[in-house]
Amino acid sequence: MRETKIFVKERPKLRDPVLVVGVPGKGNVGRVAVGYLVHKLNAKLFAELYSPFFFHFVMIHDNLLHVPRNEFYYHKGKKRDFIFLIGDCQTYDPKGHYEISGKILNFVSEFGCKEVITIAGFETGRIVEKPSVLGTATHPELVEKLKKYDIDFNTSKQVGTIVGTAGMLAGLSKLYGMKGMCLLGETSGFPIVTDPNAAEAVLERLQKILGLKVDLTQLKEKVKEMHEFIKKIEVLQEEAMRQLKAKYKKSEELKYIG
Amino acid sequence: MRETKIFVKERPKLRDPVLVVGVPGKGNVGRVAVGYLVHKLNAKLFAELYSPFFFHFVMIHDNLLHVPRNEFYYHKGKKRDFIFLIGDCQTYDPKGHYEISGKILNFVSEFGCKEVITIAGFETGRIVEKPSVLGTATHPELVEKLKKYDIDFNTSKQVGTIVGTAGMLAGLSKLYGMKGMCLLGETSGFPIVTDPNAAEAVLERLQKILGLKVDLTQLKEKVKEMHEFIKKIEVLQEEAMRQLKAKYKKSEELKYIG
Amino acid sequence: MRETKIFVKERPKLRDPVLVVGVPGKGNVGRVAVGYLVHKLNAKLFAELYSPFFFHFVMIHDNLLHVPRNEFYYHKGKKRDFIFLIGDCQTYDPKGHYEISGKILNFVSEFGCKEVITIAGFETGRIVEKPSVLGTATHPELVEKLKKYDIDFNTSKQVGTIVGTAGMLAGLSKLYGMKGMCLLGETSGFPIVTDPNAAEAVLERLQKILGLKVDLTQLKEKVKEMHEFIKKIEVLQEEAMRQLKAKYKKSEELKYIG
Amino acid sequence: MRETKIFVKERPKLRDPVLVVGVPGKGNVGRVAVGYLVHKLNAKLFAELYSPFFFHFVMIHDNLLHVPRNEFYYHKGKKRDFIFLIGDCQTYDPKGHYEISGKILNFVSEFGCKEVITIAGFETGRIVEKPSVLGTATHPELVEKLKKYDIDFNTSKQVGTIVGTAGMLAGLSKLYGMKGMCLLGETSGFPIVTDPNAAEAVLERLQKILGLKVDLTQLKEKVKEMHEFIKKIEVLQEEAMRQLKAKYKKSEELKYIG
Repeated sequence: MRETKIFVKERPKLRDPVLVVGVPGKGNVGRVAVGYLVHKLNAKLFAELYSPFFFHFVMIHDNLLHVPRNEFYYHKGKKRDFIFLIGDCQTYDPKGHYEISGKILNFVSEFGCKEVITIAGFETGRIVEKPSVLGTATHPELVEKLKKYDIDFNTSKQVGTIVGTAGMLAGLSKLYGMKGMCLLGETSGFPIVTDPNAAEAVLERLQKILGLKVDLTQLKEKVKEMHEFIKKIEVLQEEAMRQLKAKYKKSEELKYIG
Repeated sequence: MRETKIFVKERPKLRDPVLVVGVPGKGNVGRVAVGYLVHKLNAKLFAELYSPFFFHFVMIHDNLLHVPRNEFYYHKGKKRDFIFLIGDCQTYDPKGHYEISGKILNFVSEFGCKEVITIAGFETGRIVEKPSVLGTATHPELVEKLKKYDIDFNTSKQVGTIVGTAGMLAGLSKLYGMKGMCLLGETSGFPIVTDPNAAEAVLERLQKILGLKVDLTQLKEKVKEMHEFIKKIEVLQEEAMRQLKAKYKKSEELKYIG
Repeated sequence: MRETKIFVKERPKLRDPVLVVGVPGKGNVGRVAVGYLVHKLNAKLFAELYSPFFFHFVMIHDNLLHVPRNEFYYHKGKKRDFIFLIGDCQTYDPKGHYEISGKILNFVSEFGCKEVITIAGFETGRIVEKPSVLGTATHPELVEKLKKYDIDFNTSKQVGTIVGTAGMLAGLSKLYGMKGMCLLGETSGFPIVTDPNAAEAVLERLQKILGLKVDLTQLKEKVKEMHEFIKKIEVLQEEAMRQLKAKYKKSEELKYIG
Repeated sequence: MRETKIFVKERPKLRDPVLVVGVPGKGNVGRVAVGYLVHKLNAKLFAELYSPFFFHFVMIHDNLLHVPRNEFYYHKGKKRDFIFLIGDCQTYDPKGHYEISGKILNFVSEFGCKEVITIAGFETGRIVEKPSVLGTATHPELVEKLKKYDIDFNTSKQVGTIVGTAGMLAGLSKLYGMKGMCLLGETSGFPIVTDPNAAEAVLERLQKILGLKVDLTQLKEKVKEMHEFIKKIEVLQEEAMRQLKAKYKKSEELKYIG
């Protein structure tokens, strides 16, 4: 397994699907926002992505082996269909981001996907009651179209770069014949905290953009639940790394030599 | 040699073979347990695996050149056959674990293999007379089937992750149409020590699972012998790294720059 | 996207084109010299290069997503045609330099390109009024031909190596059936400064070599303008790295282990 | 150029050729021993190897661009023919050693090569008048055959591992259907010193093994000459790294993150 692989369980026929992406990151805004949509819409798992650029350990969850992965769900909407991408982790490797993004964009384009929306958080260092949502896109016409949804597109003044999956998937989508946008929910920026307020702020706008109607009243409760799992993965990763550091002390030195 | 390669000496016909894996790791539990089976069953070497993700040096053993490798042995049993995988080392590279695991799983599936059992140690930091054995698997039905063999499957409370070959081979086996399980022998956790007690505890259960009957009375003696070789490799690696560090001091710096 | 990719917008027919390369580097001499030519000649963008060896983040520029890239422009001259390569960045990866250079050289040879000229700066640590220009090439006959253009080819005494894109593209061009040369404008060497004097010194010689006539009076002004963008990228990169370092502290540690 | 490439100038017909390898390393024993043979036999350059695993800079030598490379020479002997491999450098990357070795072994086997002899130094930390020569091989029958040439094959007691090109090429040759051996000339071990005494000791034995007769009286003089060039490369590498470290300080940090 030298390359990222997508294992496909089902190949649904989808009408003009939009890819909506939420993976762990700042405040876990994207992960919980999109995870909540998957939960409430009862979206259907149809493919799993595994990558040599993910961590090289398995987690034991409910006494079973769990290899780190990302998951594709689909949901059939009234006017158009949806592909949701959520996952355990992002890659830790710069080159991995390019490879994984390419595989994802190739995959969803097989289903006729022409639009990619990624969700992430942006840190402001202060706690606010009503988090704002920033937006940016690959095409100016998309910016124009989205302005009406209470999204601040005066982004370059406030955010210089978007690092990792949310930025790369939206940015590279253009090279795969799609249009991409990124919605950034304002979050205080403590990396360990999962931020339901920012997720809610994004979901309010996202629903309107997508033409979806989802009850958000259970969000906080559900986020607390998700948080347990996300937190567990984070702790396991830290734990595994400590073990590795002790055990592979010498290999680590070899790495420097190479 | 950009990719991991398996050099095949013989292609035996095997009946419903199970892959049993033991490579160097915590307490070398897996390496000595499976190595002892290979020795006592007089299993036959039929393939060797070499990888660019292994160390880039050769050892001189009995005055001959020895490139780091993993080895496949087979043994014809009464009801089913067995493939044993043992080796000099694991890869030191996260991506290497994915590549090597994929190559191994592809290879054994050519022989009709549907089941993978990996052996490793789990550290408790205390020395016990009767080490316990923990188990985890890819499929709940496997857990159910194995519970009767005095294996503790309440694993997620005690072990968060399994790092490296034992975890990856068992976990990824599912993606290659197989079922995987991992048996973890309790060991005190001093990495340099080869632990025959943990190996014995695992072998007692493993024999019953596999329907094998092997005399364990020579285990301690044999382990001492194996330990010499394993220890030698470890020392050579340390030695080689010291030399490398002195010699390639500048290359090392280049690495940082890149 | 595991490999560097060139996205082609147009496939112009070009007469005996020469590739002229200027990417960010010492004093940004090459980047601003070639960027100025592109601007003044109103050269036409016909291809973009993206690479997994570039940074794994997107910039937000004018509120739009901008993936790091290099750009190919062409200009039809009187006697021969020109391909200009400019870009946001160089790769940070030694292996990336080989891959990207190979892709570029393959690409331009499709257009009949037989000659590669790269522009860079060489640091002297002192500020001079009239910067000198050093040259080096793959073929002695090229050195002979270029000596008349007030270029100092007694280079090996003054410069030992040329690191990165400028050196690799010129040096490797020979392996792709081309002739390569590198022009080095003398610059004081403060890496953050964009040096219009060195760029001007190179442009004076380059014009004569290429048989071009470009008004240089707006160079300083234009360089100031370019500098804003180049500087912005630099600052964003620093900023992104600071964020990454804070956020991925643990992944970073994992890297050491691998 | 993502893979190591061998550029072939000529495809000579060779009778039972043996590959003799000497690249920079401890005391540069291999490099100068084989380089001297190439010089005295007036062996003919017929192929060059370039690799993305070599340094990503070009040297300026005699005012011309010089990309780091390894070189293949052939010499037609009385009873059999010879392929000599010398070079500017070894790779600094563990995976690079596997890839480059594989390419070399594949390449020479196209010419019917069945035997590989690599030359290196082994450090003893003391200066001796008559350096001894150690040997090791892939096949016991080779050891038996070579014992008569005053080579000490009781190697495992004195040398644990052989790191890098000399070890990997000899060790991996077995996987490519060849027999490999490594001759190690005793050298004091100061890495910067080029050691003509160790080279002479090896050449005395090597000539007899190969059935060659070469005048060694000019060796010391020639080594001094070679030393200048080898030393220059070393100094350039150090220099380039210092420059890189200053310039790419930030990229370096990025590397850690990835």
